[in-house]
Amino acid sequence: MSFREHLQDICQGIDGALACSLMGVDGIEVDTHLAAKAEGLDLRSLLVEYSDLFRSARDSAAGQQTGEMAELALHTEKLVTVARLVSPDYFIVVVLTPGGNYGKARYLLRITAPKVRSEL
Amino acid sequence: MSFREHLQDICQGIDGALACSLMGVDGIEVDTHLAAKAEGLDLRSLLVEYSDLFRSARDSAAGQQTGEMAELALHTEKLVTVARLVSPDYFIVVVLTPGGNYGKARYLLRITAPKVRSEL
Repeated sequence: MSFREHLQDICQGIDGALACSLMGVDGIEVDTHLAAKAEGLDLRSLLVEYSDLFRSARDSAAGQQTGEMAELALHTEKLVTVARLVSPDYFIVVVLTPGGNYGKARYLLRITAPKVRSEL
Repeated sequence: MSFREHLQDICQGIDGALACSLMGVDGIEVDTHLAAKAEGLDLRSLLVEYSDLFRSARDSAAGQQTGEMAELALHTEKLVTVARLVSPDYFIVVVLTPGGNYGKARYLLRITAPKVRSEL
């Protein structure tokens, strides 16, 4: 299964999903599936901007000996973004509307991450 | 109701809660309730370290015009940390075990934040 198919499957399984991306913690996108438009927002730019945050979270967790970071979720007025570490250097990120199914997003990221990791 | 009482109520309402803190985004603690010890971890230091992350999240959300940040949740192997913005400069943060009641933590932060804001 290609990366893109995994990302597409995640979006299709979540009500309110806008995009799903596999990206390096350096902000470089490996692949992205755009499911819907977010009015007035460039989701690709947003994910690059947020990758700084994901990297900081990974490093903060490591620095505090709390064990490896598993997931980071940022809720704002217009979007919910959930990132899951796939390997030390890669994340899967899903962006959804605030009314979208956050629990399902977390679940699908958790079960998809090992599959993607085995293909990296 | 004092800040400390709000923080204590949050901890008492969440299975697996370790600590709850009201803190500035500059990392300076206003008040903290420690409910239990986290073996090998200094929760106060952890919250100061994480405050950088909360501030970055607030700024990333603002920079991307996604509206104000509401909540940030970081899941690691040993801890789950959920922060909710109370005002542009203050967060309530709760730290819980990975098996703790994350949904209840989110709920209690959401209903407590306006009460704390009105007392700031």
